[in-house]
Amino acid sequence: MDNSLQHKDYQKVPEPTLRRLPWYLSNVKLLKKSGERYVSSTQISKGTNIDASQIAKDLSYVNISGRTRVGYEIDALIDVLESFLGFTDIHKAFLFGVGSLGGALLQDSGLTHFGLEIVAAFDVNPDLVGSQLNGIPIYHTDSFVEMMNQYDVQIGVLTVPIEIAQSITDKMVAGGIKAVWNFTPFRIGVPDNIVVQNTSLYAHLAVMFNRLNFNEDK
Amino acid sequence: MDNSLQHKDYQKVPEPTLRRLPWYLSNVKLLKKSGERYVSSTQISKGTNIDASQIAKDLSYVNISGRTRVGYEIDALIDVLESFLGFTDIHKAFLFGVGSLGGALLQDSGLTHFGLEIVAAFDVNPDLVGSQLNGIPIYHTDSFVEMMNQYDVQIGVLTVPIEIAQSITDKMVAGGIKAVWNFTPFRIGVPDNIVVQNTSLYAHLAVMFNRLNFNEDK
Repeated sequence: MDNSLQHKDYQKVPEPTLRRLPWYLSNVKLLKKSGERYVSSTQISKGTNIDASQIAKDLSYVNISGRTRVGYEIDALIDVLESFLGFTDIHKAFLFGVGSLGGALLQDSGLTHFGLEIVAAFDVNPDLVGSQLNGIPIYHTDSFVEMMNQYDVQIGVLTVPIEIAQSITDKMVAGGIKAVWNFTPFRIGVPDNIVVQNTSLYAHLAVMFNRLNFNEDK
Repeated sequence: MDNSLQHKDYQKVPEPTLRRLPWYLSNVKLLKKSGERYVSSTQISKGTNIDASQIAKDLSYVNISGRTRVGYEIDALIDVLESFLGFTDIHKAFLFGVGSLGGALLQDSGLTHFGLEIVAAFDVNPDLVGSQLNGIPIYHTDSFVEMMNQYDVQIGVLTVPIEIAQSITDKMVAGGIKAVWNFTPFRIGVPDNIVVQNTSLYAHLAVMFNRLNFNEDK
Protein backbone atom coordinates (compact mmCIF):
# COMPACT_ATOMS: atom_id res chain seq x y z
CA MET A 1 0.00 0.00 0.00
CA ASP A 2 2.96 2.36 0.51
CA ASN A 3 3.65 2.47 -3.19
CA SER A 4 0.06 3.49 -3.81
CA LEU A 5 0.59 6.73 -1.94
CA GLN A 6 2.91 7.90 -4.67
CA HIS A 7 1.11 6.25 -7.59
CA LYS A 8 -2.47 6.20 -6.45
CA ASP A 9 -3.65 5.38 -9.96
CA TYR A 10 -1.46 2.32 -10.21
CA GLN A 11 -2.52 0.31 -7.22
CA LYS A 12 -4.25 -2.94 -8.08
CA VAL A 13 -7.87 -1.88 -7.77
CA PRO A 14 -10.36 -4.75 -7.27
CA GLU A 15 -11.98 -5.75 -10.56
CA PRO A 16 -15.59 -5.31 -9.28
CA THR A 17 -14.71 -1.73 -8.32
CA LEU A 18 -13.19 -1.07 -11.75
CA ARG A 19 -16.34 -2.44 -13.34
CA ARG A 20 -18.65 -0.26 -11.25
CA LEU A 21 -16.73 3.01 -11.62
CA PRO A 22 -17.77 3.49 -15.29
CA TRP A 23 -21.41 3.23 -14.12
CA TYR A 24 -20.85 6.05 -11.66
CA LEU A 25 -19.07 8.07 -14.34
CA SER A 26 -21.94 7.82 -16.83
CA ASN A 27 -24.46 8.56 -14.10
CA VAL A 28 -22.52 11.63 -12.94
CA LYS A 29 -22.24 12.85 -16.54
CA LEU A 30 -26.02 12.68 -16.83
CA LEU A 31 -26.47 14.59 -13.57
CA LYS A 32 -24.12 17.25 -14.89
CA LYS A 33 -26.20 17.59 -18.06
CA SER A 34 -29.28 18.08 -15.91
CA GLY A 35 -27.54 21.05 -14.28
CA GLU A 36 -26.12 19.64 -11.04
CA ARG A 37 -22.86 21.10 -9.74
CA TYR A 38 -22.35 18.76 -6.80
CA VAL A 39 -23.20 15.12 -6.43
CA SER A 40 -23.38 12.81 -3.40
CA SER A 41 -23.00 9.03 -3.13
CA THR A 42 -26.71 8.96 -2.31
CA GLN A 43 -27.58 10.61 -5.62
CA ILE A 44 -25.35 8.23 -7.58
CA SER A 45 -26.94 5.38 -5.64
CA LYS A 46 -30.41 6.41 -6.83
CA GLY A 47 -29.27 6.44 -10.46
CA THR A 48 -27.32 3.19 -10.40
CA ASN A 49 -29.18 1.08 -7.84
CA ILE A 50 -25.94 0.40 -5.96
CA ASP A 51 -25.59 0.94 -2.19
CA ALA A 52 -24.30 4.43 -1.30
CA SER A 53 -21.81 2.82 1.11
CA GLN A 54 -20.43 0.67 -1.70
CA ILE A 55 -20.13 3.74 -3.91
CA ALA A 56 -18.27 5.68 -1.21
CA LYS A 57 -15.94 2.69 -0.75
CA ASP A 58 -15.30 2.40 -4.50
CA LEU A 59 -14.67 6.14 -4.79
CA SER A 60 -12.13 5.94 -1.94
CA TYR A 61 -9.74 4.35 -4.47
CA VAL A 62 -10.02 7.46 -6.59
CA ASN A 63 -8.05 10.53 -5.57
CA ILE A 64 -10.97 12.81 -4.74
CA SER A 65 -12.67 13.82 -1.53
CA GLY A 66 -16.23 14.96 -1.12
CA ARG A 67 -17.44 17.71 1.20
CA THR A 68 -19.88 16.91 3.96
CA ARG A 69 -23.47 17.65 2.97
CA VAL A 70 -22.69 18.92 -0.60
CA GLY A 71 -20.77 15.89 -1.86
CA TYR A 72 -18.32 15.82 -4.76
CA GLU A 73 -17.76 18.73 -7.11
CA ILE A 74 -19.19 17.28 -10.32
CA ASP A 75 -16.64 18.50 -12.91
CA ALA A 76 -13.73 17.40 -10.72
CA LEU A 77 -15.31 13.99 -10.15
CA ILE A 78 -15.79 13.43 -13.90
CA ASP A 79 -12.19 14.48 -14.66
CA VAL A 80 -10.71 12.36 -11.91
CA LEU A 81 -12.79 9.29 -12.80
CA GLU A 82 -11.98 9.51 -16.52
CA SER A 83 -8.31 9.89 -15.75
CA PHE A 84 -8.33 7.14 -13.12
CA LEU A 85 -10.03 4.71 -15.51
CA GLY A 86 -7.42 5.46 -18.17
CA PHE A 87 -9.90 6.97 -20.65
CA THR A 88 -8.00 10.26 -21.02
CA ASP A 89 -4.67 8.66 -22.02
CA ILE A 90 -4.33 7.20 -25.49
CA HIS A 91 -3.30 3.53 -25.36
CA LYS A 92 -2.18 2.36 -28.78
CA ALA A 93 -3.14 -1.14 -29.87
CA PHE A 94 -2.66 -3.62 -32.70
CA LEU A 95 -5.57 -5.80 -33.79
CA PHE A 96 -4.98 -9.38 -34.93
CA GLY A 97 -7.49 -10.99 -37.27
CA VAL A 98 -9.60 -8.80 -39.53
CA GLY A 99 -12.59 -11.13 -39.80
CA SER A 100 -16.15 -10.23 -39.04
CA LEU A 101 -15.65 -9.13 -35.42
CA GLY A 102 -12.16 -7.71 -35.99
CA GLY A 103 -13.41 -5.64 -38.92
CA ALA A 104 -16.33 -4.44 -36.82
CA LEU A 105 -14.00 -3.31 -34.02
CA LEU A 106 -11.82 -1.41 -36.49
CA GLN A 107 -14.93 0.51 -37.47
CA ASP A 108 -15.89 1.36 -33.90
CA SER A 109 -14.22 4.76 -33.58
CA GLY A 110 -15.93 5.14 -30.20
CA LEU A 111 -13.15 3.18 -28.51
CA THR A 112 -10.81 6.17 -28.88
CA HIS A 113 -13.09 8.17 -26.56
CA PHE A 114 -12.26 5.59 -23.90
CA GLY A 115 -8.51 5.63 -24.44
CA LEU A 116 -7.97 2.85 -26.98
CA GLU A 117 -6.59 3.66 -30.41
CA ILE A 118 -6.13 0.76 -32.80
CA VAL A 119 -3.25 1.99 -34.96
CA ALA A 120 -2.79 -1.04 -37.23
CA ALA A 121 -4.24 -4.47 -37.90
CA PHE A 122 -2.74 -7.78 -39.00
CA ASP A 123 -4.08 -10.61 -41.11
CA VAL A 124 -2.81 -13.14 -43.65
CA ASN A 125 -5.67 -12.75 -46.15
CA PRO A 126 -4.08 -11.35 -49.38
CA ASP A 127 -7.33 -9.48 -50.13
CA LEU A 128 -6.90 -7.51 -46.91
CA VAL A 129 -3.13 -7.10 -46.55
CA GLY A 130 -2.08 -3.67 -47.86
CA SER A 131 -5.57 -2.21 -47.60
CA GLN A 132 -7.11 0.05 -44.98
CA LEU A 133 -10.31 -0.15 -42.94
CA ASN A 134 -11.65 3.07 -41.38
CA GLY A 135 -8.22 4.57 -42.12
CA ILE A 136 -6.39 1.82 -40.22
CA PRO A 137 -3.70 0.02 -42.25
CA ILE A 138 -3.79 -3.79 -42.46
CA TYR A 139 -0.40 -5.50 -42.60
CA HIS A 140 0.63 -9.11 -43.05
CA THR A 141 0.96 -10.93 -39.73
CA ASP A 142 4.61 -11.59 -40.56
CA SER A 143 5.31 -7.83 -40.37
CA PHE A 144 4.20 -7.63 -36.75
CA VAL A 145 7.65 -7.57 -35.10
CA GLU A 146 8.88 -4.96 -37.59
CA MET A 147 5.81 -2.81 -36.87
CA MET A 148 6.46 -3.05 -33.11
CA ASN A 149 9.53 -0.90 -33.82
CA GLN A 150 7.52 1.68 -35.76
CA TYR A 151 4.58 2.03 -33.39
CA ASP A 152 4.62 2.44 -29.62
CA VAL A 153 2.16 -0.34 -28.85
CA GLN A 154 1.57 -2.40 -25.70
CA ILE A 155 -1.90 -3.82 -26.31
CA GLY A 156 -2.98 -6.54 -28.74
CA VAL A 157 -6.65 -7.07 -29.61
CA LEU A 158 -7.22 -10.75 -30.44
CA THR A 159 -10.00 -11.50 -32.94
CA VAL A 160 -8.51 -14.48 -34.80
CA PRO A 161 -10.12 -17.93 -35.30
CA ILE A 162 -9.76 -20.19 -32.24
CA GLU A 163 -7.37 -22.51 -34.11
CA ILE A 164 -4.63 -19.87 -34.02
CA ALA A 165 -5.63 -17.92 -30.89
CA GLN A 166 -2.80 -19.41 -28.82
CA SER A 167 -0.08 -19.25 -31.50
CA ILE A 168 -0.86 -15.61 -32.30
CA THR A 169 -0.88 -14.81 -28.58
CA ASP A 170 2.56 -16.44 -28.23
CA LYS A 171 3.81 -14.31 -31.15
CA MET A 172 2.39 -11.13 -29.63
CA VAL A 173 4.04 -11.80 -26.28
CA ALA A 174 7.37 -12.70 -27.88
CA GLY A 175 7.18 -9.45 -29.85
CA GLY A 176 6.66 -7.33 -26.75
CA ILE A 177 2.88 -6.98 -26.31
CA LYS A 178 2.05 -6.48 -22.61
CA ALA A 179 -1.75 -6.86 -22.60
CA VAL A 180 -4.08 -9.01 -24.70
CA TRP A 181 -7.74 -8.06 -25.14
CA ASN A 182 -9.11 -11.47 -26.01
CA PHE A 183 -12.41 -11.47 -27.92
CA THR A 184 -12.13 -15.13 -28.93
CA PRO A 185 -14.03 -17.84 -27.02
CA PHE A 186 -10.64 -19.53 -26.50
CA ARG A 187 -8.90 -19.47 -23.13
CA ILE A 188 -5.39 -18.31 -23.97
CA GLY A 189 -2.35 -19.00 -21.81
CA VAL A 190 0.20 -16.23 -21.14
CA PRO A 191 3.18 -15.63 -18.80
CA ASP A 192 2.38 -14.11 -15.38
CA ASN A 193 3.48 -10.59 -16.31
CA ILE A 194 1.08 -10.33 -19.25
CA VAL A 195 -2.42 -8.89 -18.74
CA VAL A 196 -5.35 -10.74 -20.31
CA GLN A 197 -8.80 -9.21 -20.55
CA ASN A 198 -11.39 -11.65 -21.83
CA THR A 199 -14.42 -10.16 -23.56
CA SER A 200 -16.35 -13.10 -24.91
CA LEU A 201 -19.50 -11.87 -26.59
CA TYR A 202 -20.45 -15.53 -27.04
CA ALA A 203 -20.24 -16.29 -23.33
CA HIS A 204 -22.45 -13.25 -22.67
CA LEU A 205 -24.92 -14.52 -25.27
CA ALA A 206 -24.96 -17.93 -23.56
CA VAL A 207 -25.81 -16.34 -20.21
CA MET A 208 -28.53 -14.19 -21.79
CA PHE A 209 -30.12 -17.11 -23.69
CA ASN A 210 -30.14 -19.28 -20.57
CA ARG A 211 -31.81 -16.59 -18.44
CA LEU A 212 -34.35 -15.91 -21.18
CA ASN A 213 -35.32 -19.60 -21.43
CA PHE A 214 -35.43 -19.87 -17.66
CA ASN A 215 -37.80 -16.90 -17.38
CA GLU A 216 -40.03 -18.34 -20.12
CA ASP A 217 -40.27 -21.61 -18.23
CA LYS A 218 -41.29 -20.07 -14.94
CA MET B 1 -34.57 -29.07 -9.28
CA ASP B 2 -37.57 -31.27 -10.18
CA ASN B 3 -38.49 -29.05 -13.07
CA SER B 4 -34.96 -29.35 -14.39
CA LEU B 5 -35.45 -33.07 -14.98
CA GLN B 6 -37.94 -32.25 -17.69
CA HIS B 7 -36.27 -29.11 -18.99
CA LYS B 8 -32.64 -29.71 -18.26
CA ASP B 9 -31.65 -26.86 -20.57
CA TYR B 10 -33.79 -24.35 -18.77
CA GLN B 11 -32.56 -24.61 -15.22
CA LYS B 12 -30.83 -21.51 -13.95
CA VAL B 13 -27.23 -22.47 -14.53
CA PRO B 14 -24.67 -20.49 -12.47
CA GLU B 15 -23.18 -17.64 -14.46
CA PRO B 16 -19.54 -18.73 -13.91
CA THR B 17 -20.43 -22.14 -15.37
CA LEU B 18 -22.10 -20.53 -18.38
CA ARG B 19 -19.01 -18.41 -18.90
CA ARG B 20 -16.65 -21.40 -18.74
CA LEU B 21 -18.64 -23.74 -21.00
CA PRO B 22 -17.76 -21.79 -24.20
CA TRP B 23 -14.08 -22.25 -23.29
CA TYR B 24 -14.58 -26.01 -23.12
CA LEU B 25 -16.50 -25.92 -26.38
CA SER B 26 -13.75 -24.12 -28.30
CA ASN B 27 -11.11 -26.37 -26.76
CA VAL B 28 -13.04 -29.52 -27.70
CA LYS B 29 -13.52 -28.21 -31.25
CA LEU B 30 -9.75 -27.84 -31.54
CA LEU B 31 -9.17 -31.37 -30.23
CA LYS B 32 -11.63 -32.65 -32.81
CA LYS B 33 -9.71 -30.89 -35.59
CA SER B 34 -6.53 -32.56 -34.37
CA GLY B 35 -8.24 -35.93 -34.88
CA GLU B 36 -9.49 -36.89 -31.41
CA ARG B 37 -12.71 -38.90 -31.16
CA TYR B 38 -13.05 -38.92 -27.39
CA VAL B 39 -12.13 -36.30 -24.86
CA SER B 40 -11.77 -36.42 -21.06
CA SER B 41 -12.08 -33.65 -18.45
CA THR B 42 -8.35 -34.06 -17.94
CA GLN B 43 -7.64 -33.24 -21.59
CA ILE B 44 -9.93 -30.19 -21.51
CA SER B 45 -8.19 -29.17 -18.29
CA LYS B 46 -4.81 -29.16 -20.03
CA GLY B 47 -6.09 -26.93 -22.82
CA THR B 48 -8.00 -24.48 -20.65
CA ASN B 49 -5.99 -24.41 -17.41
CA ILE B 50 -9.13 -25.10 -15.37
CA ASP B 51 -9.31 -27.91 -12.76
CA ALA B 52 -10.62 -31.18 -14.19
CA SER B 53 -12.96 -31.51 -11.20
CA GLN B 54 -14.45 -28.06 -11.98
CA ILE B 55 -14.90 -29.09 -15.61
CA ALA B 56 -16.66 -32.32 -14.65
CA LYS B 57 -18.92 -30.32 -12.32
CA ASP B 58 -19.73 -27.74 -15.01
CA LEU B 59 -20.44 -30.48 -17.55
CA SER B 60 -22.82 -32.16 -15.10
CA TYR B 61 -25.31 -29.38 -15.96
CA VAL B 62 -25.17 -30.46 -19.57
CA ASN B 63 -27.14 -33.52 -20.60
CA ILE B 64 -24.23 -35.78 -21.54
CA SER B 65 -22.41 -38.56 -19.74
CA GLY B 66 -18.85 -39.64 -20.32
CA ARG B 67 -17.59 -43.21 -20.29
CA THR B 68 -15.02 -44.30 -17.75
CA ARG B 69 -11.52 -44.19 -19.16
CA VAL B 70 -12.44 -42.95 -22.68
CA GLY B 71 -14.35 -39.82 -21.68
CA TYR B 72 -16.94 -37.97 -23.77
CA GLU B 73 -17.66 -38.79 -27.40
CA ILE B 74 -16.34 -35.63 -29.06
CA ASP B 75 -19.04 -34.99 -31.72
CA ALA B 76 -21.82 -35.55 -29.20
CA LEU B 77 -20.16 -33.21 -26.69
CA ILE B 78 -19.84 -30.42 -29.27
CA ASP B 79 -23.48 -30.82 -30.35
CA VAL B 80 -24.81 -30.93 -26.82
CA LEU B 81 -22.72 -27.95 -25.68
CA GLU B 82 -23.70 -25.79 -28.67
CA SER B 83 -27.34 -26.62 -28.15
CA PHE B 84 -27.14 -26.14 -24.36
CA LEU B 85 -25.52 -22.73 -24.78
CA GLY B 86 -28.26 -21.69 -27.20
CA PHE B 87 -25.92 -21.26 -30.17
CA THR B 88 -27.89 -23.62 -32.44
CA ASP B 89 -31.22 -21.82 -32.07
CA ILE B 90 -31.70 -18.52 -33.84
CA HIS B 91 -32.67 -15.76 -31.40
CA LYS B 92 -33.92 -12.72 -33.27
CA ALA B 93 -32.96 -9.29 -31.97
CA PHE B 94 -33.52 -5.61 -32.61
CA LEU B 95 -30.64 -3.17 -32.22
CA PHE B 96 -31.24 0.33 -30.84
CA GLY B 97 -28.79 3.09 -31.77
CA VAL B 98 -26.82 2.84 -35.01
CA GLY B 99 -23.82 4.85 -33.89
CA SER B 100 -20.24 3.74 -34.02
CA LEU B 101 -20.59 0.61 -31.86
CA GLY B 102 -24.12 -0.20 -33.05
CA GLY B 103 -23.03 0.04 -36.68
CA ALA B 104 -20.05 -2.17 -35.92
CA LEU B 105 -22.26 -4.84 -34.33
CA LEU B 106 -24.59 -4.81 -37.36
CA GLN B 107 -21.57 -5.65 -39.47
CA ASP B 108 -20.44 -8.52 -37.25
CA SER B 109 -22.14 -11.39 -39.05
CA GLY B 110 -20.29 -13.78 -36.73
CA LEU B 111 -22.97 -13.35 -34.07
CA THR B 112 -25.36 -15.49 -36.11
CA HIS B 113 -23.03 -18.47 -35.66
CA PHE B 114 -23.68 -18.11 -31.96
CA GLY B 115 -27.44 -17.88 -32.23
CA LEU B 116 -28.07 -14.14 -32.44
CA GLU B 117 -29.62 -12.63 -35.55
CA ILE B 118 -30.13 -8.89 -35.57
CA VAL B 119 -33.13 -8.54 -37.90
CA ALA B 120 -33.64 -4.78 -37.76
CA ALA B 121 -32.19 -1.66 -36.19
CA PHE B 122 -33.68 1.58 -34.91
CA ASP B 123 -32.39 5.13 -34.85
CA VAL B 124 -33.73 8.67 -35.18
CA ASN B 125 -31.01 9.99 -37.49
CA PRO B 126 -32.75 10.88 -40.81
CA ASP B 127 -29.57 9.95 -42.72
CA LEU B 128 -29.87 6.39 -41.43
CA VAL B 129 -33.63 5.78 -41.23
CA GLY B 130 -34.80 3.94 -44.36
CA SER B 131 -31.31 2.67 -45.23
CA GLN B 132 -29.68 -0.72 -44.65
CA LEU B 133 -26.40 -1.78 -43.10
CA ASN B 134 -25.05 -5.24 -43.95
CA GLY B 135 -28.52 -6.02 -45.33
CA ILE B 136 -30.23 -5.08 -42.03
CA PRO B 137 -32.98 -2.43 -42.36
CA ILE B 138 -32.84 0.66 -40.15
CA TYR B 139 -36.21 2.02 -39.03
CA HIS B 140 -37.20 5.11 -37.08
CA THR B 141 -37.35 4.43 -33.35
CA ASP B 142 -41.03 5.41 -33.41
CA SER B 143 -41.76 2.34 -35.60
CA PHE B 144 -40.51 -0.07 -32.93
CA VAL B 145 -43.89 -1.20 -31.55
CA GLU B 146 -45.25 -1.68 -35.06
CA MET B 147 -42.19 -3.77 -35.97
CA MET B 148 -42.67 -5.94 -32.88
CA ASN B 149 -45.80 -7.22 -34.64
CA GLN B 150 -43.92 -7.99 -37.85
CA TYR B 151 -40.89 -9.71 -36.35
CA ASP B 152 -40.77 -12.39 -33.67
CA VAL B 153 -38.22 -10.66 -31.45
CA GLN B 154 -37.45 -11.01 -27.72
CA ILE B 155 -33.99 -9.45 -27.49
CA GLY B 156 -32.99 -5.78 -27.72
CA VAL B 157 -29.36 -4.76 -28.23
CA LEU B 158 -28.76 -1.39 -26.59
CA THR B 159 -26.09 0.82 -28.19
CA VAL B 160 -27.61 4.29 -27.71
CA PRO B 161 -25.99 7.32 -26.01
CA ILE B 162 -26.17 7.15 -22.20
CA GLU B 163 -28.60 10.09 -22.09
CA ILE B 164 -31.37 7.94 -23.55
CA ALA B 165 -30.27 4.47 -22.38
CA GLN B 166 -32.99 4.30 -19.71
CA SER B 167 -35.80 5.81 -21.76
CA ILE B 168 -35.12 3.48 -24.72
CA THR B 169 -34.96 0.53 -22.31
CA ASP B 170 -38.33 1.51 -20.88
CA LYS B 171 -39.77 1.67 -24.43
CA MET B 172 -38.32 -1.74 -25.29
CA VAL B 173 -39.81 -3.34 -22.18
CA ALA B 174 -43.19 -1.68 -22.72
CA GLY B 175 -43.13 -3.00 -26.30
CA GLY B 176 -42.52 -6.60 -25.23
CA ILE B 177 -38.73 -7.07 -25.28
CA LYS B 178 -37.74 -9.77 -22.74
CA ALA B 179 -33.94 -9.41 -22.68
CA VAL B 180 -31.67 -6.38 -23.07
CA TRP B 181 -28.06 -6.79 -24.19
CA ASN B 182 -26.67 -3.55 -22.78
CA PHE B 183 -23.47 -2.30 -24.42
CA THR B 184 -23.72 1.17 -22.89
CA PRO B 185 -21.71 2.11 -19.80
CA PHE B 186 -25.03 3.06 -18.18
CA ARG B 187 -26.62 0.88 -15.51
CA ILE B 188 -30.19 0.44 -16.74
CA GLY B 189 -33.12 -0.43 -14.50
CA VAL B 190 -35.69 -3.06 -15.60
CA PRO B 191 -38.56 -5.02 -14.01
CA ASP B 192 -37.63 -8.34 -12.33
CA ASN B 193 -38.82 -10.52 -15.20
CA ILE B 194 -36.55 -8.84 -17.77
CA VAL B 195 -33.07 -10.22 -18.43
CA VAL B 196 -30.18 -7.75 -18.63
CA GLN B 197 -26.78 -8.75 -19.93
CA ASN B 198 -24.20 -5.99 -19.51
CA THR B 199 -21.27 -6.02 -21.92
CA SER B 200 -19.37 -2.85 -21.22
CA LEU B 201 -16.31 -2.72 -23.46
CA TYR B 202 -15.33 0.44 -21.56
CA ALA B 203 -15.35 -1.29 -18.18
CA HIS B 204 -13.16 -4.03 -19.67
CA LEU B 205 -10.79 -1.38 -21.01
CA ALA B 206 -10.61 0.21 -17.55
CA VAL B 207 -9.64 -3.12 -15.98
CA MET B 208 -7.02 -3.77 -18.67
CA PHE B 209 -5.48 -0.27 -18.39
CA ASN B 210 -5.28 -0.54 -14.60
CA ARG B 211 -3.57 -3.94 -14.71
CA LEU B 212 -1.16 -2.70 -17.39
CA ASN B 213 -0.15 0.34 -15.33
CA PHE B 214 0.14 -1.80 -12.21
CA ASN B 215 2.48 -4.25 -13.98
CA GLU B 216 4.60 -1.39 -15.32
CA ASP B 217 4.98 0.01 -11.82
CA LYS B 218 6.15 -3.21 -10.24
